[in-house]
Amino acid sequence: MRRNILVAQSGGPTAAINATLSGILREAMKSDKIDKVYGGISGIAGILEGKIIRLDSQIGGEEDLELLAATPAMALSSCRYKLPMPEVAPDVYRQLTTLFDRLEIGAFFYIGGNDSMDTVNKLNTYFKRAEEDIRIVGCPKTIDNDLACTDHTPGFGSAAKYVATSLAEVYADSLVYGRPMALVVEIMGRDAGWLTASSGLVHMTGLPAPHFILLPEAPLEIEPFLRQVKEGIERDTVVMVAMSEGVRLSDGSYLQSEEGNSVDAFGHVALSGAGKNLEQLIKRRLGCKTRSIELSLLQRSASHYASATDIEEAVRVGEGAVALALEGQTGVMAAIRRVSNDPYRSEIEPVPIEKAANAVRHFPLEWLNSETGTLTREGIEYFLPLIRGEAKHFTQNSLPRHFRFDREELV
Amino acid sequence: MRRNILVAQSGGPTAAINATLSGILREAMKSDKIDKVYGGISGIAGILEGKIIRLDSQIGGEEDLELLAATPAMALSSCRYKLPMPEVAPDVYRQLTTLFDRLEIGAFFYIGGNDSMDTVNKLNTYFKRAEEDIRIVGCPKTIDNDLACTDHTPGFGSAAKYVATSLAEVYADSLVYGRPMALVVEIMGRDAGWLTASSGLVHMTGLPAPHFILLPEAPLEIEPFLRQVKEGIERDTVVMVAMSEGVRLSDGSYLQSEEGNSVDAFGHVALSGAGKNLEQLIKRRLGCKTRSIELSLLQRSASHYASATDIEEAVRVGEGAVALALEGQTGVMAAIRRVSNDPYRSEIEPVPIEKAANAVRHFPLEWLNSETGTLTREGIEYFLPLIRGEAKHFTQNSLPRHFRFDREELV
Repeated sequence: MRRNILVAQSGGPTAAINATLSGILREAMKSDKIDKVYGGISGIAGILEGKIIRLDSQIGGEEDLELLAATPAMALSSCRYKLPMPEVAPDVYRQLTTLFDRLEIGAFFYIGGNDSMDTVNKLNTYFKRAEEDIRIVGCPKTIDNDLACTDHTPGFGSAAKYVATSLAEVYADSLVYGRPMALVVEIMGRDAGWLTASSGLVHMTGLPAPHFILLPEAPLEIEPFLRQVKEGIERDTVVMVAMSEGVRLSDGSYLQSEEGNSVDAFGHVALSGAGKNLEQLIKRRLGCKTRSIELSLLQRSASHYASATDIEEAVRVGEGAVALALEGQTGVMAAIRRVSNDPYRSEIEPVPIEKAANAVRHFPLEWLNSETGTLTREGIEYFLPLIRGEAKHFTQNSLPRHFRFDREELV
Repeated sequence: MRRNILVAQSGGPTAAINATLSGILREAMKSDKIDKVYGGISGIAGILEGKIIRLDSQIGGEEDLELLAATPAMALSSCRYKLPMPEVAPDVYRQLTTLFDRLEIGAFFYIGGNDSMDTVNKLNTYFKRAEEDIRIVGCPKTIDNDLACTDHTPGFGSAAKYVATSLAEVYADSLVYGRPMALVVEIMGRDAGWLTASSGLVHMTGLPAPHFILLPEAPLEIEPFLRQVKEGIERDTVVMVAMSEGVRLSDGSYLQSEEGNSVDAFGHVALSGAGKNLEQLIKRRLGCKTRSIELSLLQRSASHYASATDIEEAVRVGEGAVALALEGQTGVMAAIRRVSNDPYRSEIEPVPIEKAANAVRHFPLEWLNSETGTLTREGIEYFLPLIRGEAKHFTQNSLPRHFRFDREELV
């Protein structure tokens, strides 16, 4: 394998994506087979524009690696660029080949979600056919937890920890006036409801909330739902509805408002306002006080309360990805395999990228009792280890301290 | 002084109001002059309905006191009931006198904001005139930090810590696509902008955000604002606007939508949607991508990341209030006096309640550079100690653990 490697990030931010980058850097800097670690700014789109910087020379030591692992958002920025097929745009692949030759890149690591794994798959197919020894390894991340072939995805556990903690806190807050109310909390998740479903853990704190967990996987039947909200308010005064942004009605339409929606490069509709709309529907129909809270960017960037399990695994995914490339593997995703729940243990294993790319893994509805908003034992055992522990975070003057790469000097 | 005391909570929740309750309980349980500690459920309104429970018998020891201090929302619930003047409703005061006689209450502690201090003032005036030896002490709390005669209010520091931390995290998140955007964050504060202004601390993390800090104290001039947003986007790609919910335009109108607004018992308009409205205005006028985030209940209930300084001071306010009553003081608020900034030290001191009640303390605009969204040295030195340190919080299975009183048995 050539001696340099390249890494980039893509898709949406999570509290753990930089932890995987940190793991890649740590493993690469330890190995005598790897010389330079380059970083592509703004994913594969930025790489095609030549936005590449040297990373390893900017890491002063272990504290920098830990600080990077505790930094939210994406230290290398992102893109939502869909790599065309080689048949359609051969020049794009030729450009990448030239670039990889010039920088003597032996392995490329792409940290991202479903769409990023599609990019990994295409690159791997192309380089294999071209008989280039460039190893392509995908590193999963997404708060949606909807990637196939991995027990869960880095970033999910931290988001779930934030969601469960915040919901317990705001439900306690909503009770103080003893006034009947419906409290709607909108949680990210366009097509998969894992994150919203994890809010079922709040019941373990002794609260009756959330009363409803509405997921993209299960169409919402408005009339029975409103009846049950009314009953819930009579019983518990405040009813909490945890809903995914992508909840659909039984006729297939989304709950979000049409206004201002846009479609991204992958054809996904950008949703907004689902919680607000459900809030207004409940208010109009039941006449009770309602409130909606959108967890928005807060839920995926809350590094101040990230899950220790999540950050530690995200680092291991990065380390494992480098180890796989050094072993000669390519066209694989460094997936997480759950070994045991008690004590919780997991391993990093390679899975063929063509199996992981573009598949969406849905939440198993049988883990949820939709009448009570509670998880089955299987669901609890799945979620609980993933939010465990508080990851180290760094502060200065009690304000967040984050790692930043200097991006001035392109290579 | 008679041997029992009564305590209740009023107004909006904060992460620190139960810490003051914990301080009252600790000091009262230590004193051989105090026997029973009663709690009124739902403030003075609940007390008038006879909703009173015994508190001290439910505290098992120091861990319960610490757990209570780390519990968000209000362990005794709240009300927004405005006590009428004795001339208007003498029966209300007679009812309270009878109740206090029956329970042998020697001192009443009311933890709350401006409106609660109004209640303390009225009760004190009445009992003094009636020559009843019932000592009335107010304990300040409000995330708005707008109470007069105290350097700051318990609850404010924790909310400010959450706001500054979250804004730094979401700004980092908003940068990842390198796409021009205006990011509006709506922060609580109807009439006073302290909490929104504290977001100026984010500049100390090295970020250029927030670019704008819009406060109720300064009317918003739309045209220059939009021009500056445009310039900010050209310079920094993502412009962050931190705005109080109570921001007014220069014609005196609020930015929030009219729809759904209601007026509470104190004549305050309940605002909503100011951030959304500003988001839409920017989008319409500048045509750029915009997003708004409302910190909603999250900002006042985030006990998982409360300020150690805040929680510790809130406990001392409670302890100090009991000490004041035991000294024979009445008609006072247990205020916080800042002794020094470096090292930060504060003391609890009594201030006459008639001076504190119903006055609103505004943020001094001269502490803010509105062109850059930065605080002056004086502003930084005021805010910084208040967010310092991470308060202890309790978890079980990595989920929040909160204290709850059993409210079944009324006295």
